[in-house]
Formats: sequence, structure tokens, C-alpha cells
Amino acid sequence: MKRYEKFAAAIAEKIRSGLLPPGAKVPSVRVASLAYAVSPSTVFQGYYLLEDRGLIQARPRSGYYVRESASRQVDEPQPMQRVSAGTDVGVSDLIYSVLSSLRDPDTVPFGSAFPSPDLYPLPRLARSMAKAVRGMDGGRLSDMTTGHPELRRQIALRYMNSGVRLPMDELVITNGAMEALNLCLQCVTQPGDLVAIEAPAFYACLQVLERLKLKAVEIPMHPRDGVNLAALDDALQRLPIKACWFMSSLQNPLGASMNNDAKAALYTLLEQYQVPLIEDDVYAELYYGTKPPHPVKSLDRSGLVMHCSSFSKSLAPGYRVGWVAGGRFARQIDRLKLMTTISPSLPAQAALADYLQHGGYDRHLHKLRDTLETQQNAMLAAAARYFPKETQVNRPLGGYFLWFEFPQRVDSLKLFELALAQGISITPGPIFSATQQHRHCIRLNCGYRWDKRSEDAMALLGRIIATF
Amino acid sequence: MKRYEKFAAAIAEKIRSGLLPPGAKVPSVRVASLAYAVSPSTVFQGYYLLEDRGLIQARPRSGYYVRESASRQVDEPQPMQRVSAGTDVGVSDLIYSVLSSLRDPDTVPFGSAFPSPDLYPLPRLARSMAKAVRGMDGGRLSDMTTGHPELRRQIALRYMNSGVRLPMDELVITNGAMEALNLCLQCVTQPGDLVAIEAPAFYACLQVLERLKLKAVEIPMHPRDGVNLAALDDALQRLPIKACWFMSSLQNPLGASMNNDAKAALYTLLEQYQVPLIEDDVYAELYYGTKPPHPVKSLDRSGLVMHCSSFSKSLAPGYRVGWVAGGRFARQIDRLKLMTTISPSLPAQAALADYLQHGGYDRHLHKLRDTLETQQNAMLAAAARYFPKETQVNRPLGGYFLWFEFPQRVDSLKLFELALAQGISITPGPIFSATQQHRHCIRLNCGYRWDKRSEDAMALLGRIIATF
Repeated sequence: MKRYEKFAAAIAEKIRSGLLPPGAKVPSVRVASLAYAVSPSTVFQGYYLLEDRGLIQARPRSGYYVRESASRQVDEPQPMQRVSAGTDVGVSDLIYSVLSSLRDPDTVPFGSAFPSPDLYPLPRLARSMAKAVRGMDGGRLSDMTTGHPELRRQIALRYMNSGVRLPMDELVITNGAMEALNLCLQCVTQPGDLVAIEAPAFYACLQVLERLKLKAVEIPMHPRDGVNLAALDDALQRLPIKACWFMSSLQNPLGASMNNDAKAALYTLLEQYQVPLIEDDVYAELYYGTKPPHPVKSLDRSGLVMHCSSFSKSLAPGYRVGWVAGGRFARQIDRLKLMTTISPSLPAQAALADYLQHGGYDRHLHKLRDTLETQQNAMLAAAARYFPKETQVNRPLGGYFLWFEFPQRVDSLKLFELALAQGISITPGPIFSATQQHRHCIRLNCGYRWDKRSEDAMALLGRIIATF
Repeated sequence: MKRYEKFAAAIAEKIRSGLLPPGAKVPSVRVASLAYAVSPSTVFQGYYLLEDRGLIQARPRSGYYVRESASRQVDEPQPMQRVSAGTDVGVSDLIYSVLSSLRDPDTVPFGSAFPSPDLYPLPRLARSMAKAVRGMDGGRLSDMTTGHPELRRQIALRYMNSGVRLPMDELVITNGAMEALNLCLQCVTQPGDLVAIEAPAFYACLQVLERLKLKAVEIPMHPRDGVNLAALDDALQRLPIKACWFMSSLQNPLGASMNNDAKAALYTLLEQYQVPLIEDDVYAELYYGTKPPHPVKSLDRSGLVMHCSSFSKSLAPGYRVGWVAGGRFARQIDRLKLMTTISPSLPAQAALADYLQHGGYDRHLHKLRDTLETQQNAMLAAAARYFPKETQVNRPLGGYFLWFEFPQRVDSLKLFELALAQGISITPGPIFSATQQHRHCIRLNCGYRWDKRSEDAMALLGRIIATF
């Protein structure tokens, strides 16, 4: 990282943490130059970068200020009623109609679940792939079930570097995180069992519960801080919950992240009730700034946490390579996999192993994080311009989703239809809920390069919303 | 195919079909030359080829004869007792201890489930892969759920060329056939349901039933002709069977193939009882000679057959690309896949699409079939030399498995331990049975190049068997 980038990162951190609140003046060039022991030109370069990313804006003859536009915070929603028993899940039809709407490449992809494929180093990955398959001999193929050894080693190394010590044999390579999550859930539940999930939750979580005939106990979320632990404690006490499935960092769809204290408290609950956690951590690498979030897995003394992740969001969509650090359930997960898909594609595993060793993954991630933060700011700014005054929006510390809450009169399912007719896809709130809540909410994807088309689409969305 | 190869194929066909029984003299050079309108030297070349493959042998001053060694036929086993109710399956532990025994690369791989990786065009596939990933753009990645369009087209074309007309949207690309089989079974059953399977059956079939809490109704097999249809009819009449899972051609482990009449009769039963068939057809491309077997799917007027296959045995082990032609269940299968693994690895799909177009798949298959037939004959000849007289063995019309029945005193689980201690893996019979039958049987893999080590291993196996 260059000096001005480091300086910019430090200021950005202060904005994110609230030390520099919206509307606050950022330090003058002279003050910053002294305080951070950098040259004035470094400060200028840093402020240009932050301006470019939409974090600060210049006011003529006055200096730089933290942008107001991005600052609106969603109020904490009313805690949901206590769930007296698990809810049967049945949202699949709605989800499929939304998903199939996304297949038209001419649609503005605000409803997409993936960032723009342009953000990934596909040509560099192609080189790794070509090299990997050239070197692939027969021997490799015959023992494929345990996963590519070098890929396993590289993943274990990344855990170690982020402070999580992991015995290699806890790692099971899977067909993306989705398979990992499925296998984990099957390991610790039987049809009819109760599973604690977030409300709102990642819609695939709802689908998987529906498929496995599990019942959802929806735990209310704080839109910034994540799972409401008091509600979880209460639910664990009253109900025979067999597993929790949470995204502790950069939750989809809210973008919420639990802080370290909350994660520790969550782990204490897990140990107290001896309930395993399926930690879906696929967005972990997409944090903004320089401080990676710690997964609950990092606290796992007794093997209760199954930590699932993948390269699909951070590096190689379409390669379908994920993994789970399965704790005490690892062997069982590995066996289940052998009965369902046997192993993920070996060329993809070999290519990623090569890329992780030689491709410059951390450099790519650094750039990706910056790009996503810039785009988030652009979308927030556009929302401030075009969406109704009462709109509420969170400001996630990473990822590429924004969760908008509109006044209750706005029907997101209708909005979905109207917007789609105008060539804009969005994700309506109810598909994130086993009980079809969040009807006045939508999730938008800011993972695509911001341009005039995006700007126009936001303006058009704003006009449609105003008709409700 | 060269002229002498065509001639040899015609003679081989007669041997396989029994028109030229074991011990019979094959036509003299003069007669064959006239009958097939080829030159005497073509006949000579053809007979050399057949001798090389172990189908015929020369007797000094007398000419060529169909080999006796390969001719021993297994008697039809006693039909099993009728299954009064489904059997809970619980073989996984045994299967895992057998599978993990195969991981040592120094072990003679008679117990392996795969042929030698040397038999596959890995360098040519690597070229297709390098080309495919170079050309892979972002757009491709965003709509990956339905499978790679060109790969789907190529697979549909191969169906069409073999006489099976298939609407493209019946095709679901999966992570190998194993995922396809799992998805099909989940589509048409609930935990506790009865499923008709073969006895003996592919062990993964037993594992999957165990995992999904289904009950097995074991239908007795004829070792050459496949499923006993009278027993099946009886079972369908008496029991609420929800699905059949059969390998109609080159069944694993017996190598049995139903003939076309039997397949037609099976389809009539399916329609009569309206029971869907999951047709596991992964060995279909490995038939010897020139006449491909027809799947039951080719008779499917009403969408009752889910035809599962893959490239894992015929072209690209480790790539993990399979598919199902799902009949009336295709959409449901596709949805289930979206909830479990989303999609198979895209680079693998793209590479195979390129290879199928430009790689010379049929040329490769032709060579592969010949190699496997040669190796089967070599193993049969060795078995005749080294195994006890009472040994019975079938002569499958393709593939790379041989199923040996020894006298009842031979305990294949003990044999497995003793052989492994000597560095030879085998697959003991009971892992192919929900009720732990076939204790005196083993499956051997003849998919590896035959050499002195294989010959010695057969001799050693013979000596161990003699100690029982």
C-alpha cells in the first residue's frame, strides 16, 4: 500500500467507526500532515482518494467534510414477536420467480446476488488453470475425495494468518459454500428439527430448510450489529434448537456485522446450550479498510463451529469451490460429501491452489474492497438524491448489498414487478423471510461499476417508489 | 476403423453373442476371406488383434479357437427370498474402511472403482481447458445455473445420434452422476419410502438410501441378464415402491446388461405401476465392440425415466461433470440442484464442451473400449490360471469390473484383509448388499494396464484363496 493509501485508510476507518461523524470536517491539510507525519501532498492525494470513493466531499473555501448523504442510519426494527414454535418454510416459488427475472443480461442487475464479473482476475485465473491442468497427472485424479492437498494447505495458511489455528483435517473442500452449508445442516439435524436463523435471512437458507423439512426459529436482527443475543438466549432456553445458522459478518441481506464482544457472547451461548453454529462467512474477505472481521470460529475451543466459506464472492465465481472448517463434525461432513457429490471439480481446485500461491490474491482483494466501497458510496449518494425522504438505509462495513427500508405503504413485491417492466431488477424483502416479513424493504446490489445507467436506474426507481 | 479392425470387430461380436461359443474353431483364413470379402492378410491381421485381446488362441497346426478360459459362466444365483418389507440400510462403515484402503498408491488397485487415469486424454483435455478459460467472459459467469449452453447442446446431440430424442430442457448438468442420482431420488421419495434396487447393487446406492432414510427392496439379479423382472413385478404389486434405481447396462458390480426385450418389459412395468426409474447409465459408453446398448430412456414416452450419466468413467475423471435427462421431473431436479450446489464448476463444463466439439471423443472411446476388452481378457485368463476350479465368473460385454463367485467357504471380508496385507486391494461382496449377502464374492477391477505386477497379484490372490 502506498503512503497516501495508508493515510486514506486511517481516515476512512475513523469515518466508518463514527469518530468522524457525517457532516464533520476532516482535519485540515496542515493538521493532518503533522498528526500523521506525512507530507501535505500525501494528505491531498489521500483526500482525493476518499472524495473519489464518496466518503468525503469538498466545500468551496472550507475544506473537506464527511459526506452527509451516506450517513442515514436505519432505526433498529421492533424486535419480532417471540417465535413460540418453529415455522415451516415455503418461499421457494417466490424466490424462483425473482431469480429467473435476473437472467436477462439487459436488465440493470440491482437484484443480482453476485458482483460484476469484471471485478475478478479472470485472465490471471485462466493462466493458473492452464498451468494446473497441464501438470495434472493420473495420480492426482485417483485420490480426489479428500480435496486438492495444496489447496487445503493454502486455505489453512490463510486461516493461520488471520489468527485461526486449524488442524488441516478439519477442512473439507466443497462445491461452493452452498454445498458446505447443506452438508453441515444435514450433519446435525433430522427432518422436523428446529434451526435458529436470522430475520431477515439469506434466502437460500430458507430454501435449504424447506428442502430438508426443518423448521425455522427466526431470531430478530439489529441492522448494524446483527443477531439479537437476548432473543437468541431466550429461544435456546425455550426451544429444542438443534443448530444455529448465522452470518456473523456482513450478513446478507442487511450487511450487519457482530462486533467481537457480541461474537464472544454468542460463542458462550453455544457452549452453554451445546448447540452447533453453522457460520456462513462468504463475505468475510469483502470488508472495507484494513481490519478483517474475526469469525466466531476463531473462538472455537470445543469444535462447535462449522465455518463455511468459498471463493465465489471474492475471487472465482463459477469455479464453485468452497470449504468448511467443520470442527468436531468434519469427518461426518466429509463422509456425507462422498455420498452426494464425491468431490468438487479437480481442475478448479488445482487452478485456485496455483493462484493462491502465485496469483497475488491479497493484492486483488485490496483492489476489490476499494472498488466495492466506492460503489457503495455512489449508490448511497444516488439513494439520497432520488429515494423518498423517509427511506432508511444501513451502511455496511463491506460487501456489495444495501438494505433499504421504505415507508410501510411501499409494496416491494409490486415494486419488483414495476421495476422489472422498466428493465431494472431488485430483490424484494419478503424472499428473505420464512414468514414473508419485510414487505416494505428491498435489497440492492452495488457490486457493479457505477455509471450513467446505474444513476438513471436509481432515479427511475425513485420515481416508481414515489407512486406508492 | 481400418479394414482388419472392422473384420475383427465382426468376429468379436459373434464370440460375445455366443454364436461362436468357447472352444469353437473360428472360420479358417480362406473361409473368412471369402465370407467377409477381405484379403487373407486382413483376416490374419484381424485374428492377431483378437489373439492379442485374448478372445481367441492359436492351436498349433489347427488354427484359431475361441478361448476357453474366458468362458466360464456364473450360474444364475438362487432368486432371493421375497422382500416382505423394505430393509433399512447400514453399510457405510464397511464401505469406508474398504475405500480408505485404496488410498495407498503402492497397492495393486484391483479394488478401485475407477480405471487407470492413463486411459484418458488428459493432455488433450488440458488444451481444451486452457482454451475454454481464456475465452470465458463475465457474461458466462452470471448465468451459470442452467449449465453451460454448448455442453448441453453437445450432450443432447450425442443422445440424438444414439436414437434418443430429448428436449434440451430435460437436461440438467450436475456434479458427476452421483449428484444426479441423489437429486433424482430426493425428487420422488420421502424418508421412509421404499426404493427397488438391484441385489447386488452399486455400494454408493446403498449409502445414498441410508443417508436419505429410504428402505431398500432388493430385486434379485441374473448375473448376465440383469434385473429379474418377475421378482420386480411381484414386488411392485405387493409393495408401495416409490422408485426403481437400476443400471440397465453393464451393471456395477456384476457387469450384467438387460437385453432390449427385457428393457421394453421393464418399461411396461414402470408405466403399469407408474413408478419412475432412475437409470444409472455411467458405464454405457464402455461397451465392447460396435453396438451401443440402448438405455431404457430410449423407450420413455411419458417422462418416467431419469437417465443419469457422466464423463467420469469415459473421459474426464476428476472433472466431476455429469447430467440427468430428467423426464417429467427435470424442472424439479434443477430446482433442487440450485438449493444444494447451485451449479457444477464452469471451467470444467466449458472444457468438456470444447473437447466434445473438437477433441475427438469418439476416437478416444473406440480406443478405450478396445483397451478395456484386452485387459478384461488378460484378467480372465489369469483367473483361469490361478483361481480355484470352482470359481465362477461372468464375462461382461463392457466396462472394467469382473465379479467372482468362490465356494461358500471363502470369506471375502477376510480375503480383503489378507490381500491388503500383501499390498493388493479387492472389493468384497458384502459392501454391495443391504443385507450383507455375497460374502463369498469379490469384484475385481481390470481397468489398469496388465503387466507382470497384475499377473503376480492374481497368482498371490489365488494362493490366499486356496487357504480357505
